[in-house]
Amino acid sequence: MGCNLAIAGVTGAVGQEFLKILEERDFPFDSLKMLASIRSAGKKIEFKNKTYIVEELTKDSFAGIDIALFSAGASRSKEFAPLAVDAGAVVVDNSSAYRMEPEVPLVIPEINPQAIAGNKGIIANPNCSTIIGIVPVWPLHKANPVKRMVVSTYQAASGAGHSAMVELEEQTREILAGKEPTCEAFPYQIAFNAFSHNSALGPNGYNQEEVKMVNETRKIFDCPEVAVTCTCIRIAVFRAHCESINLEFTDPITPDQVRDLLSTAPGVSVLDDREHNRFPMPIDASGKDDIFVGRIRQDESIPENRGINIWVAGDQLRKGAALNAVQIAEKLL
Amino acid sequence: MGCNLAIAGVTGAVGQEFLKILEERDFPFDSLKMLASIRSAGKKIEFKNKTYIVEELTKDSFAGIDIALFSAGASRSKEFAPLAVDAGAVVVDNSSAYRMEPEVPLVIPEINPQAIAGNKGIIANPNCSTIIGIVPVWPLHKANPVKRMVVSTYQAASGAGHSAMVELEEQTREILAGKEPTCEAFPYQIAFNAFSHNSALGPNGYNQEEVKMVNETRKIFDCPEVAVTCTCIRIAVFRAHCESINLEFTDPITPDQVRDLLSTAPGVSVLDDREHNRFPMPIDASGKDDIFVGRIRQDESIPENRGINIWVAGDQLRKGAALNAVQIAEKLL
Repeated sequence: MGCNLAIAGVTGAVGQEFLKILEERDFPFDSLKMLASIRSAGKKIEFKNKTYIVEELTKDSFAGIDIALFSAGASRSKEFAPLAVDAGAVVVDNSSAYRMEPEVPLVIPEINPQAIAGNKGIIANPNCSTIIGIVPVWPLHKANPVKRMVVSTYQAASGAGHSAMVELEEQTREILAGKEPTCEAFPYQIAFNAFSHNSALGPNGYNQEEVKMVNETRKIFDCPEVAVTCTCIRIAVFRAHCESINLEFTDPITPDQVRDLLSTAPGVSVLDDREHNRFPMPIDASGKDDIFVGRIRQDESIPENRGINIWVAGDQLRKGAALNAVQIAEKLL
Repeated sequence: MGCNLAIAGVTGAVGQEFLKILEERDFPFDSLKMLASIRSAGKKIEFKNKTYIVEELTKDSFAGIDIALFSAGASRSKEFAPLAVDAGAVVVDNSSAYRMEPEVPLVIPEINPQAIAGNKGIIANPNCSTIIGIVPVWPLHKANPVKRMVVSTYQAASGAGHSAMVELEEQTREILAGKEPTCEAFPYQIAFNAFSHNSALGPNGYNQEEVKMVNETRKIFDCPEVAVTCTCIRIAVFRAHCESINLEFTDPITPDQVRDLLSTAPGVSVLDDREHNRFPMPIDASGKDDIFVGRIRQDESIPENRGINIWVAGDQLRKGAALNAVQIAEKLL
């Protein structure tokens, strides 16, 4: 039982990760169409012992397509996703274009798979830092509702695309050679540095990455009253985000209860070895499917043992983007 | 009006910074004794057009010394600081050895210079991440008492000494050359990575760096009721720490009020340019005296406008260590 699959943005960092994950998970398809901008049209891509030729993404790309995985940026999603839906496809969109549309399900399969059923042709994939942060918070929230989350992120270059990962490496080489680092993909030096996330700032001073964390968490948890505040920072890491998450719960909770709840949670690996000071790192999470969680501690600054601190790491390109979208597509089949 | 000065641990990263800062600030001294472990004894150091020979730190090193700046590790401070005091010196100790001793003042000159007067021979310099975090919080706390702080740190390699800074560079070269990174100064890869602070963990799962932030903040603020929780993380940066700080105040406060209070605060530079998405970065703070503060936002997850988020960057070797100690010594003169 297969389907006719299309990938829009196949040559990008997430697009390439789509292919890896489809192969690893042996995603069943009858046909696969590889789409990208005209700049990449004509490129050849080997996939499962077959050579595919990248086609230009146009309004006519979606005839006969059942599922279209989009990761070509918000403006292309806005232009082409409705055309794909008109042609009969279900779109799983990795961009921010539709996430907050009330009629579009915003889905993390470990959290709200039931929302998929209500789709009207487009299903939105949440932002990477939202997914990585809240996959491990959800099982806790279900047991003991989270009242407030304070999140600080440590985000990898990959979130800004393949060119940003290359830039991290190139800048590092330049600095080690005593040269001035070249900044193109990022506005500021990323090598041996850290900076506030380079997304647009709203009038309240929060950047889009932070606003996404707040709004998407509430929508995915179907809990508009959960209070979230967030500071998003880029660090010199290639492809896994980390997050320091402070949680205030409704009722008392212990680190042991958190560890127990997370030990059986889908998509979560507990790595909380206090004896060896061994906790999640970006290099642990890179290339892995699970979100790694450690530094599980009682927050003694919240009364009545209602506070917990955790530290998480997750692959930005996998669970933060391509894997989550493929998991949604698997649910669609 | 000078003094007879000694530096214990002169060949370390902080010791070398002591010399830079003493020269920059034209610290008045009649004589200067450079002390280190036997391994470094005999080394020559040029300082202010004079050649000094590093002497071994021994029990007899402090005869005639008025002020001794210590940065030779906690065990050497425990052994030699009392001997220096017995010999008539005042010790400004950069280690953790005496910080929480009730009779030892723990001083940040911008915050509690009055505590210096009560010294009994030893004055403790706070931990780097404490200093960098709370210099900008103090002027806010004075205007509107802080009830709770949630801190996540982004700490540079320099906090683990010169060898850790070298290791960051060496590991980076190894990884770019496709080799396995060599871990000696740090237990885990620091290049292109991040990890939970490599200090000892207590039974509650907090590491020593986090415990310091909690206890030292309360002592320096002379406010045992301020609630602090902290997650300390190392990132791939050479010498400036950053911190994401969430503040809950007693009364309502606005970002404009915070900006106003910080704009005249000693030791603080506000860098909060929302229009250009330009906020403090480690490379801004490196080599600078001030703590840079930006991302000043209302935290809407705290009711009644009593919440503020800020993001700070400060040089770990300067204000985080050597500069603060020299400022204390200046107050002593």
